Formats: sequence, structure tokens, C-alpha cells
Amino acid sequence: MNHFMEPRSVAIIGISRRTGPGSYNLMENLLYYGFKGKIFPINPQAKKILGFQAYPSIKEIPEPVDLAVISLPRELVIPNIRDCAASRVKAVIVVSQGFADADDKGKALQYEMTAIARENGLRILGPNTLGVVNNFHNFTTSFMPLNKEEAPVGMICQSGLFFVGARNFTGKIGKGIDIGNACDIGFYECLQYLGQDPDTKIIAIHMEGLAQPKEFLSLASRVAGEKPIVVFKTGQSAAGARAAASHSGSMAGDYDIYRSALKRAGCLFLDEDGQMGDAVTTLLHQPLLKGKRIAVITITGAGGIIASDALERNGLELAHLSKETILSVAELSPEWMPLGNPLDLWPAVMKHGIQKVYGRTLKAALADPDVDGILCISVALDTRKFGFLDVSEGLNESASTERRKPVVVWLYGPNRSEIAGRIEREKRMTCYETIERAAWSLALLRERHRFLEKCAT
Amino acid sequence: MNHFMEPRSVAIIGISRRTGPGSYNLMENLLYYGFKGKIFPINPQAKKILGFQAYPSIKEIPEPVDLAVISLPRELVIPNIRDCAASRVKAVIVVSQGFADADDKGKALQYEMTAIARENGLRILGPNTLGVVNNFHNFTTSFMPLNKEEAPVGMICQSGLFFVGARNFTGKIGKGIDIGNACDIGFYECLQYLGQDPDTKIIAIHMEGLAQPKEFLSLASRVAGEKPIVVFKTGQSAAGARAAASHSGSMAGDYDIYRSALKRAGCLFLDEDGQMGDAVTTLLHQPLLKGKRIAVITITGAGGIIASDALERNGLELAHLSKETILSVAELSPEWMPLGNPLDLWPAVMKHGIQKVYGRTLKAALADPDVDGILCISVALDTRKFGFLDVSEGLNESASTERRKPVVVWLYGPNRSEIAGRIEREKRMTCYETIERAAWSLALLRERHRFLEKCAT
Repeated sequence: MNHFMEPRSVAIIGISRRTGPGSYNLMENLLYYGFKGKIFPINPQAKKILGFQAYPSIKEIPEPVDLAVISLPRELVIPNIRDCAASRVKAVIVVSQGFADADDKGKALQYEMTAIARENGLRILGPNTLGVVNNFHNFTTSFMPLNKEEAPVGMICQSGLFFVGARNFTGKIGKGIDIGNACDIGFYECLQYLGQDPDTKIIAIHMEGLAQPKEFLSLASRVAGEKPIVVFKTGQSAAGARAAASHSGSMAGDYDIYRSALKRAGCLFLDEDGQMGDAVTTLLHQPLLKGKRIAVITITGAGGIIASDALERNGLELAHLSKETILSVAELSPEWMPLGNPLDLWPAVMKHGIQKVYGRTLKAALADPDVDGILCISVALDTRKFGFLDVSEGLNESASTERRKPVVVWLYGPNRSEIAGRIEREKRMTCYETIERAAWSLALLRERHRFLEKCAT
Repeated sequence: MNHFMEPRSVAIIGISRRTGPGSYNLMENLLYYGFKGKIFPINPQAKKILGFQAYPSIKEIPEPVDLAVISLPRELVIPNIRDCAASRVKAVIVVSQGFADADDKGKALQYEMTAIARENGLRILGPNTLGVVNNFHNFTTSFMPLNKEEAPVGMICQSGLFFVGARNFTGKIGKGIDIGNACDIGFYECLQYLGQDPDTKIIAIHMEGLAQPKEFLSLASRVAGEKPIVVFKTGQSAAGARAAASHSGSMAGDYDIYRSALKRAGCLFLDEDGQMGDAVTTLLHQPLLKGKRIAVITITGAGGIIASDALERNGLELAHLSKETILSVAELSPEWMPLGNPLDLWPAVMKHGIQKVYGRTLKAALADPDVDGILCISVALDTRKFGFLDVSEGLNESASTERRKPVVVWLYGPNRSEIAGRIEREKRMTCYETIERAAWSLALLRERHRFLEKCAT
């Protein structure tokens, strides 16, 4: 995979002279990325493209090329792959559509493509792909704009959606591989690469179909012992499976079988779009959840009830708090205040201020031997006027040095992004859109812990 | 309820001379709100509070008072309610905590409070409440800051969480009533008020327990024939139910029974926090879904598959698109492109531009007799550089004049809020965080349609 991810030289076959808006010019993107290797644009009609000498064919390039990227109408792809093979190019990315994602002719072309790869020891990524992104190497073959971030998140997907829409899925991508129709390179090779990659701490996968399930699952269970693997398998419904067949030519297979096999291999399985971001952030920053006893610390009783429901739905339970934890709040509360779990701090906060009360309670819960994880609920108001209700400093002070138990946070009110930003700055606690998602994320940390425990025995 | 929601004069009993940060001074909030009625602060230690003449007791006020708001330590509340009754105050809001939400003594005090109300024809809201907010009357009794917005959304809740955290729940609130422990005024009276209120087009309810289920359900089924009622019932789990008992003194009851009874009465039932905002926005702006056949229009095949899964999970199905609809896209696509539902526009968009292709396809789907609703998927990039991929104008042009079928939208990419804002500006289409939530919202429009259909027969 190194030829794909960290090439020293790239030929771009079928690159247009058109640049700027609407040209989808992938070479322009690559230059913007600051790629340090050599670039050879291939276009028989052009002498220069974007300031680089153009060549009529890959065969004319006077030096070895690590990677060729082909973006041509489908009927021109096969001859160009043959030329790549003849020129001893080791890796080819076929961006073009119209293969197994299309009609019978397309399927035949893709079959031929695979045969050429096998015969010549050439590896092909795609067709029907944005290719790769490697933000640690200033490299991408995407013709769509991407955010450049050196994140420890590796992505393997069957659609550029997960590159362009990274914000909606993993949040950030450090290294990504879109296997598209996967005529040759598949999930196995990509997982092997990202599994060994020191820059990648977590691997997220979008999967429509899986060609060699047995090999992949055995590899996944080894990699999952080292790094979390999050899988979003689509094509769950009959309609979705049909759509997958015409999108990437994938056989979606039986969803329940996939689900149980992937989970058994230690993959963390997602059920809906929207869960991937929480999964990645949580697994990157939080310690694992070693038991299922959760303390809910809240300044709203109603929020505590919602949290109780959400925790139970996600297989967790309310901890029986120790006397010391209860006492830490009781000393600051009116004597009539019933205190338990959820632990409602509001009357104490009104009297003694949020930072003191919240910080002290969180510290007690972190020290409580009957508590495995903590769900905090607080308010997020305009800090210029209501700074006295800003919980971030109290939380950071108590939690930053203690990293044995996960602490997840839900904030309500009009100023969530500012306060959440301050809480997440320490990379210790994570904030969530809803209480449900905070509870779900705790459950994910529990699932991961149980898998690793099983590996250890 | 008019005395509570639109008082001409308000006495604030137990108001502090302390103002500014951390004082939780509700009179300061009320003045900031621009309340036009008379305000009588009651505080035996003060002569003036915030520029208003203070009175030692409600009995000293020389004119009739519509509403008294009591914010005092719990042991002082009962004598003050008696004074209110003696002074012929008709409505009292008890903000104070420490009643059925607390210990046995608190329960006894609340019982006494209810008895005084019944004996004197006095109505009490609370205790343990932020009271009311009426943004059409510049009025609130909340000591916490709220956003002032004349929205057609009425809220009935048992916690100030839904006022202060409106952004996380309904999004906006026009009129809101926090019934707190509900010693007297309950869901019934509030629903009656909001049901008849011409400013309120939709009613959202947060419910911990329901004291008179029979009366409420019968009223709800009448109101639901006129306006949608959305209910978020908490205390679903055993732990949540216990927490509800000590939060608002509510009996949470059997969740499944509540659920089926409320649904039968035509209420739209929410299962998780985070659904309320989508429910409110969708029901306010979208036409109902008259059948379950959905067209998915997308520029990402992978997104179309996710949508297919989400629709099926939510009880909807992919429409069999008419020849005309398919043809509208086929004419602009490469001939190898397989076209069906989901309808993948990407190859056509690359060639002909997103506005033309997307607008034309949406128009065809809106006219297609085999389509009941539409789910659109598109990208949201920086418009300064990628304005040519901005879908908003194409969508607005095609959908704004045609309001018979719901059109829900999911955008991916880094610039969602800008593009979503432009799409939602026409109050025709609505955008969602995830595909799952877009599909869920369509299902809600279907549920509402079926209830109204049943009412009509």
C-alpha cells in the first residue's frame, strides 16, 4: 500500500487542461495539498499543465513512476492500464466510473482490469473511487476538496462521501482509502496497512460488501487487539442491498451475519449514520469503561431522569454511590434535598457556585470505588453574562489529572460550542449532542473493554 | 390560565435586593423582557427594588394583583399563599423547591398548598418551577435567562431544562409552562390553554407523570385533531421512574401503557432526547406524508444506500419512480449509468451542473404520481470556492411553489449551516443532522397524516 499512500512520483493520466471551479481537476487539488513528490501529467493534447511538463503517454516518462491515477472515459481505461503495466508502474488508481457499478459491459471491463493486475503484479485501487488521502504526506488523489488535518484516524470506505463528508462521519481523517468497486485492493489490504501504521490510532470502516470475509475477519480480530476498529455496514435493508449492488457492485450479504461476525472479531458495529463521529472521538480520548456502574451528576433533575432512561437502554446502570460521594454534595445542599444517583446539584450550585460544587462532586465520583464511569449534565450560557454558571473550569480541574474512568458530558442551552470546546480542550472529557449519545458512547467504551479483556485471557 | 400567561399586574414575593450575576433575580429578567404590566416587588427589608416601590406584604398593595410569584424558603411559602388568598390574588406561581420533590415534610407542605388552592378558588402553578414564559406578551417568571422569540411553539414541561435548553429540544418556544410538581395546575389546564391559543401552532410536552390520565387523553385527542402534539415521556426505566419520583414527585407509571395511550390519542411520541427539535421543525414546515413511497435523490450512491436502510427502518419504502422521472435524469447521464431509486445524479451533475440537474429531478419527483415524499442528499462546501456545487437555489426553485409533498434534505461536508440556512429560508424544506433523522421525520409526517385521516372518517 505504500505506493498508494506515500508515492514518490505520480502520473496523472487523463488530466484536463481545465482548472478552477467545476473542472474537478485532481492535480490542482494535489498541488494545493503541497505534495512534495514528482508529478507527471499525461495528456496527448497538452505541453504543460499547471506549470508541469505534460507527456503524451505514461510510456514517455523517462523515469520510474510509483503510482498512476487514471481518470478517463471507461473505454480508454484498459489500454492505459496495459501501458502502466508495460512501464512497470506498481500501483494504479482508477477514478473513472462505469464498471461493476454500471452495466454488463462495465462488469466485463472491470473483470479484465482485475486480470491484468493479477498477470502483471500490478495493484489497482478502484475503479469508481476518489482514491486516497494521506495528510501525513501532503498527498491526495481526490478531485473533491478535503480538509487537511493530521488526525490519528484512518478511514477505509467504498465512497468519497466519507472523505468529503468527514465532518459528518469520523470528524477528521488522517489517512483514508476509498476502495470503490474494489476490483483488486480490498478491505484486507487497507486494514493491514492502517493496522501497522504508527500514525493511525483508530480505524473507521464504511462497508457495502466484503469479498473475502474469512481473511478479513481473522486480520480484524488481530488488529482490534491493538487499535479500535469501528464499522458502519450499509445495505442492511433489501432496498439498500439492491442499491449497493448498483453503487459499488457489492454483494451486501446478510446484515445480521455480518453484524455478529464483525462484532465477534472485535469490531465496534454502528447501526446508524451519525454514530461514527461520537465513536471516534470517544475511543480516541476516553479511558475504557471497566464496569457498568455510572454516576450521573446533574444540575437538572429532569436531565438526570432522561440520563437514567438512556443508560438503561444502552445496557448500563446507575451506580450506588458511596457515602463519601453523597456527603460531598449533602454538606452543600439544603437538608431536605434528597440525594442519590442521579446526583442533583442544583440547590447546592445556587448557594455555593457551580465551579466549587461541580468540581468537588466530580472528584468524589472519580474516587468512588462503586463508580465505573461518569455522565455529567450542565448548562451552557453566554459566558459574558453568566460566567458564574460556566462548568468548564470546575470539570477540567477535577478530571484532567485522573484518567482511569470515562467522563462524558452533555450541555444544554444556547452556548454549547464554546463551553464544550473548553471542556474538550484537555482531551480528557467529551461532549455530546444528546444525552442518548453520551450514554451510547459509554456503552461503546464498555464493549471495547470487554473485547480487550477477552483477548487477554 | 390567562392570569398566569398574560397578567396585567404581578407581585414578586421574596424578591432579593441582590441583582446581577449569580443573584438569579427573576424581576431583573422580567424587566429585561420588557413586560408592560405593573410590577410589585414584595420584600419587608426593602423600600425600592430595581427602581420599583417595594411592599412589605402582598396585603399592602393598594390595587388588585393578577399573579403572585413566590420565591421563598419553603417554610415561608404557605403563610404567603394564605395572604395571597386573603388579598384575592387569583393565580400564584411557587418557584421554591423542597416540596413533593423533597422529604415527607415537603410532601405535607405541598398537600396543604393544594388544599388552600381548592378552598379559596386560587390556582397554583408549581411548586418547583421556573413558571411561565410568554414571548407574545413580553412576560416570564424565569430566573434563568431565556431566548425571546415569537415562535408558534407551545411547551408544557416539568422542568426548566426545556426553557433554558430550548435550543436542545423544541428549538424555540413562543409560550411555555413549567408545571413543576403540579400541585394544582397540571397538563390538562395547560393543554386546554395552548390548544385554544391562536399563537400556538404546535404543542410539545415533557412529561414525567400524569395525574389525571383519562381527562388529559380525551382532551389531547380533541386538540390533536387541530394541532400536532409531541410528547417526550421520561422515566421509562425503573431507575428513571425512581428519579422522577424524587424530582417532581411524579409517578412515572408504566411506560408502555403511556406510550400506547398517548399515541392512540393522536400524540406523536418521542423515544429519545434530540428528537423533539426535528419533530417540531418538520411538523411546522412540511406538508404531511400521504403514502409511504419515498424518492431518494442523491449525488452519492453510498448516501442513497444509507437512506434506503433508514427509510425501511422507519417503516417507509422506496418508490417505483415513473418513467418520466427516470427519463429526466437519464437524458443528462452517461448511457451506462444504472438509474432507479435511489436516483444517483452524480455523473449528470459533473457534466451539467448541480442546479440544473437537481432542480429538474426534484421537479419530476414532485410531479411523479408514484412518489409521496422526497429525501434529498447533497454536498455543502465552501460557497466562495465551490459555489457551482451549491444545491440550494436549484432546490428552492423547484420546491418552493409546490407544497403537496414533504421534501427533507441531508447535507454532508464542512459548510452545512450556510447551505441549510438558505434551503430552510423558504420554510418549505427542512435539513437534518443525519439521514436517519431525515427518514424518521418523514415517518412522523406519515403518522400525523394517518391520525388525521382516522379523525376524518
